[in-house]
Amino acid sequence: MSNSLSTTAEKGKAKQPDWITPVPRAREPVLKVYNSMTKAKNDFVPMNGRLVKWYNCGPTVYDAAHLGHARNYVTQDIIRRILVDYFGYDVHFVINVTDIDDKIIQRARYNYLVSRLQEQTQALTSIIISNVEKAFTSYLHSKLEPSLPIISNRVKTDAAWTKACSERDENLLMMSFHAPIEIQNSAFEGLLNAKKDQVENRIDQPRAHALISSAVDILGPWLDNQYKSEITDHSIFRSLAAYWEDQFMADMASLRVQPPDTLTRVTEYVPEIVAYVERIIKNGYAYSTGDGSVYFDTRAFDGAKRSSGDGTDWTHAYAKLMPWNKGNKELLEEGEGALSSGSSKRSAADFALWKASKPGEPAWPSPWGPGRPGWHIECSVMATEILGDNMDIHSGGVDLAFPHHDNELAQSEAYHDCQQWVNYFLHTGHLHIEGLKMSKSLKNFITIEDALKLYTARQLRLVFLGQLWSAKMDFRESALAETKTIETMFDNFFSIVKALITESKSKGVPLDSRHHYEDAERELTGFLHQTQHAFRTALCDSFNTPEALARLVQLVSRTNVYLSRGRTSVNIRVVQNVAAWVTKMLRMFGLAEGSAVNAGPAYIGWGSATTDDPESFDREAVLLPYLRVLSTFRDDVRRLAISQAPARDILVLSDRLRDVDLVPLGVALDDQEDGRALVKLVDPETLQRAREEKAAIVAEKAAKKAAQAEADLAKKRAKLDGAVSRLMRWSYGSWNEDGIPLTDGTGVELNKSRGKKLTKEWEIQKKLHTEWEEWVKTQAANR
Amino acid sequence: MSNSLSTTAEKGKAKQPDWITPVPRAREPVLKVYNSMTKAKNDFVPMNGRLVKWYNCGPTVYDAAHLGHARNYVTQDIIRRILVDYFGYDVHFVINVTDIDDKIIQRARYNYLVSRLQEQTQALTSIIISNVEKAFTSYLHSKLEPSLPIISNRVKTDAAWTKACSERDENLLMMSFHAPIEIQNSAFEGLLNAKKDQVENRIDQPRAHALISSAVDILGPWLDNQYKSEITDHSIFRSLAAYWEDQFMADMASLRVQPPDTLTRVTEYVPEIVAYVERIIKNGYAYSTGDGSVYFDTRAFDGAKRSSGDGTDWTHAYAKLMPWNKGNKELLEEGEGALSSGSSKRSAADFALWKASKPGEPAWPSPWGPGRPGWHIECSVMATEILGDNMDIHSGGVDLAFPHHDNELAQSEAYHDCQQWVNYFLHTGHLHIEGLKMSKSLKNFITIEDALKLYTARQLRLVFLGQLWSAKMDFRESALAETKTIETMFDNFFSIVKALITESKSKGVPLDSRHHYEDAERELTGFLHQTQHAFRTALCDSFNTPEALARLVQLVSRTNVYLSRGRTSVNIRVVQNVAAWVTKMLRMFGLAEGSAVNAGPAYIGWGSATTDDPESFDREAVLLPYLRVLSTFRDDVRRLAISQAPARDILVLSDRLRDVDLVPLGVALDDQEDGRALVKLVDPETLQRAREEKAAIVAEKAAKKAAQAEADLAKKRAKLDGAVSRLMRWSYGSWNEDGIPLTDGTGVELNKSRGKKLTKEWEIQKKLHTEWEEWVKTQAANR
Repeated sequence: MSNSLSTTAEKGKAKQPDWITPVPRAREPVLKVYNSMTKAKNDFVPMNGRLVKWYNCGPTVYDAAHLGHARNYVTQDIIRRILVDYFGYDVHFVINVTDIDDKIIQRARYNYLVSRLQEQTQALTSIIISNVEKAFTSYLHSKLEPSLPIISNRVKTDAAWTKACSERDENLLMMSFHAPIEIQNSAFEGLLNAKKDQVENRIDQPRAHALISSAVDILGPWLDNQYKSEITDHSIFRSLAAYWEDQFMADMASLRVQPPDTLTRVTEYVPEIVAYVERIIKNGYAYSTGDGSVYFDTRAFDGAKRSSGDGTDWTHAYAKLMPWNKGNKELLEEGEGALSSGSSKRSAADFALWKASKPGEPAWPSPWGPGRPGWHIECSVMATEILGDNMDIHSGGVDLAFPHHDNELAQSEAYHDCQQWVNYFLHTGHLHIEGLKMSKSLKNFITIEDALKLYTARQLRLVFLGQLWSAKMDFRESALAETKTIETMFDNFFSIVKALITESKSKGVPLDSRHHYEDAERELTGFLHQTQHAFRTALCDSFNTPEALARLVQLVSRTNVYLSRGRTSVNIRVVQNVAAWVTKMLRMFGLAEGSAVNAGPAYIGWGSATTDDPESFDREAVLLPYLRVLSTFRDDVRRLAISQAPARDILVLSDRLRDVDLVPLGVALDDQEDGRALVKLVDPETLQRAREEKAAIVAEKAAKKAAQAEADLAKKRAKLDGAVSRLMRWSYGSWNEDGIPLTDGTGVELNKSRGKKLTKEWEIQKKLHTEWEEWVKTQAANR
Repeated sequence: MSNSLSTTAEKGKAKQPDWITPVPRAREPVLKVYNSMTKAKNDFVPMNGRLVKWYNCGPTVYDAAHLGHARNYVTQDIIRRILVDYFGYDVHFVINVTDIDDKIIQRARYNYLVSRLQEQTQALTSIIISNVEKAFTSYLHSKLEPSLPIISNRVKTDAAWTKACSERDENLLMMSFHAPIEIQNSAFEGLLNAKKDQVENRIDQPRAHALISSAVDILGPWLDNQYKSEITDHSIFRSLAAYWEDQFMADMASLRVQPPDTLTRVTEYVPEIVAYVERIIKNGYAYSTGDGSVYFDTRAFDGAKRSSGDGTDWTHAYAKLMPWNKGNKELLEEGEGALSSGSSKRSAADFALWKASKPGEPAWPSPWGPGRPGWHIECSVMATEILGDNMDIHSGGVDLAFPHHDNELAQSEAYHDCQQWVNYFLHTGHLHIEGLKMSKSLKNFITIEDALKLYTARQLRLVFLGQLWSAKMDFRESALAETKTIETMFDNFFSIVKALITESKSKGVPLDSRHHYEDAERELTGFLHQTQHAFRTALCDSFNTPEALARLVQLVSRTNVYLSRGRTSVNIRVVQNVAAWVTKMLRMFGLAEGSAVNAGPAYIGWGSATTDDPESFDREAVLLPYLRVLSTFRDDVRRLAISQAPARDILVLSDRLRDVDLVPLGVALDDQEDGRALVKLVDPETLQRAREEKAAIVAEKAAKKAAQAEADLAKKRAKLDGAVSRLMRWSYGSWNEDGIPLTDGTGVELNKSRGKKLTKEWEIQKKLHTEWEEWVKTQAANR
């Protein structure tokens, strides 16, 4: 290091006195993480310096994401932000999308088969009614669980239902439980209506389709049972998955969950999965069965003695996360999926690595015949592909711990033949709603979209921050009220501080214009520093966000007390320091709007989501939509000009730009007489409404015009009809070749002047007639 | 910790297998700081957890800040940002403003007295001319340093100067050195003009004021010498300081130096300073002299034996930073200030804590009579007031190390009676310009305001980042050229990545739509992780920013190689991860526009200054320029379409939109073969340059074309001239009114066939002639 001081040091003879290595008064806390691998808080030690390799189990995309998903992914996002933005780790965050899965296969087939039935059904026939009845009965039978006491589970909807059921099948009444009441009611009402319609001979196609729609959820499984093997177009699976993946990503963006560094999809990793399974077989921990499936051999793996390169011995272990669940049949079967038989397994605990695909199931080539990956193998393969032979953090919802994560660990340790594939396993806790498990039948199933209609993304995140990430959480209305109180407290605090700063600036008084740093200021600054330490201590304690949040609240309260001294006795800079740090920490948690691109150290408050917010504003995001419209318009104009299209087409384009393309962007172009449009930035919604109103007026005018045209037509017809009839009604004795009368009805020749007059009249009538004919022709052509 | 997993764990009988504590493959580096207290890199250990107490020596406000100040404060700002935004320390950053100082006192008095003279002077009298002459002579005498060889230091300006001097005073010629030549010349010319004016009787007030203005710098000291004691209004000192403090703060804001957490001013801490000095006296390390001053007793302090509470012995030491400079008279005197006599000191090494104020100097009450603080004491007092009895970091320019910082350390350790008041002393290196010390006389004195006219704040910061903060730095034009190359490299990289992302989004292809994570992607991601580690290692090595910057450049180069595979074989997400991290690190260094701290993980690029400012951004201001261009284009297109103008005109319009109107807005439209232009947001200046280059090529082509046209013209002219001359050369006897010959040269009438032939030829020639005339007209019109 070339340094002017050190060269000076060499010159002199005198020596510097000894320096005392600082002995901290307060040590900095060390990050500990609650680790499912130990069910304890362990010191967090990444394998590669500050790099944190992290694999997070993503969604199986076949339905809308709900509040439980929100809690899971928002919580992981919070931990990721803490690691990156607070502790300064370099995190590589990988998430997968499960787009091959029995649930996706079933849902896609149901949707497809019901649509096909709709298309094929032309009328409300006895056959379709009978089929829906069959499906209904079959559905109720499938939900029957005879072991439960029947009476208490009776469906009690209304008198009609009871009566109808008793008429057809006494037993139905007792069978109908465990089936979501909405599905039953909908189908049942559909059937009642259909029968009534049929009796009254209203059997058109719409009525038939109404019946099918009412029974969608029961027809799916029933049709699937009969026709699934007919499905050969596998794109139906991919497009269902793609649709729900898009929905999921949109939900995550709404919740301000940051996108992953790497996203993987199972459909894109099948060859890698096949190779992975082959190596597990080669390593002796899996076997293929005669029917084209491959299973993991839990008995061969669990307890297998291994030796490290350095001679130390160790053993493989199965179910490291939840060894007490080994052999839990219910959990194991759920893990295997609804389309698995598993009949050829060697042991009940074994699980599928590769499933032979039956007809109607998507299939990829493999050494064991056409098939598809088992559920657990995907994560092992994709995590290995992206992160290598080891990772620091694996995360997922606690419901995935067994068997999914335990199987994944076993597979990966079997593949790498290593002792510990994952160092820290983080399981986010369950979410209940008002004390109950969320389920569609309990009517407490809340999609993310619905939740965001009731609460803002910030409020939801504040609620989640108020809970330990690993604990079971109860989502209660009352907790949300508390959260809103906290939000308001921050709101008010930011408003006051910003107002004080603005005020002092507008007075021309800089923040530091006078010495005002007495005991009160020293105390408040000291409390800020204490809070910073306590905040860090809380986050080091396995990301204890409720405690960290409480410290921020406490700091704001304390500062409010200081502020109550009155504005003239307040050192605004000290308060600003507090507000700026609180802001920074709240932003770090992802509570602010936008992506906080430009929040400086002196920035205070949440920011706002609209584009006039400095944080969310980014030149690309704001300008590009407008520029794309401009560029497209230019592209189109050029195209027309090059092809020498008529000028009228260009005018149509220019109207479309004004009336269609710019409307959702909130840009109003008012064309002026001088040919220079006035540009206005307005609220897109208002503009849309104005445009619709304009369209309505145009439509009304068009209607009036049409009515007028009809009236004109009638008039004209009357007039012309008159002309024609007059032509016809002329009654004369003889005519020349043009049809002009020569003699009258009595045979007397017409005199000259009469003849001339007639000729003239004839010519007028002829002209009218020609006009009529031509007009009729035009009308026909315009139809 | 209430956790659903742990409760499950208690239920089960099975136990989890042992977890292996991770053994890192790569340890994370530890932050070391080059410490002037040891002239070595020491592990950085703050005293209170992650809280870093930091006092930085601020400016003495009496003149414009220059490039040396820029380097000092920008460098400290960079280190502060690294500590806060990279390492995540909670930093309390204090800076002072020295607004009591001998330089301020002198400058304020000079300004005041010259102004007073201006006001009092009504005409160009002999008195005022004589006074300026006296001041001039006195000034030159004051600059005389007889010990230097006189001849080599002669002022050689021009003949007039030499002559004039010889006329008045032979000695002047030999005295005139060490005085800035501009000051001499200005005053001298002022005097010459004044004398000429007087002779010619032009003696109005403006001419008198012009003389005074020309001699401002020599009149100040001359007047001060006579009238300083008349100055009793002390607000003149405060207002000069306030003015230059505002200028300094504005400079810092332009350089994007973040404001301190706490700012202190000496004028606001005088009572605290008095109390502080009293305690040092009480502790036995200072003495008051009879004349109202107080001095630090270096002999009493240096080597004084002390005992800690726990019984360990230690000794006080004076000049801990630069013990080899103890007794350096020149440095000591400079530290005492121009207005000090120091005649009553006990030892030459002693320095003033409190100075008795003479008439014309600002004064505050004290037990020792009216006076003012010595220079060094302020920092001891204000740092103690804000940070308490100890601090982690003290920083300042290396020129302050002795005596200022050594005296400050002695005072503070004398006051607190402690062994080590500052743990880490950071001294930023000197700045030279093209190898020379910056000075007004060398004409290489560059104010911050001037520098910002030549370079952007980002370029200056990049230059400073390219140097070790503690090393002497040479500011060279060539280094700036290199810096601009690096800046352009980042620019291009960000543009490409953003264009690729935008393109893939506009195509409706999400970033992660396909599996494309092969060896090349793994390598690039691996290189990103390596770079992150190397970057951290560099910053841990005493904030080695040149190395850190080099790593970023290397990463960008490597990524550019990957990008050269072509857009279809590139995994955009991987490139985006690189660009986002590079962006984040550049923003962390303060290189981006705005005061960005928490740039979102996906944010790329520098940002832009106009729109980043939270106060200035509003939707209208940002969008309307773009929308006006869009609207005007549409207006023009409509006008042409309505007037049925040729399609070619519309194409000209569309080119003008691309090449003229959108250029200053930083919008590049790249027309593509498929007729859909690629829209890019780029730096307007770069675009302008590219456009000018393109225009130059077009101009060259046009010039060639013009030359060709000229050649064609010559050819054509030759041909047509031929035709005309042929017309002229016809020689016949007589002609008809069209000029067709009737008789030949001999008067014989031409025969019919000859006549016909001639008529035909005449017609051809006439057509050619008309063509020629018309062509000549066109040419004239086109000039």
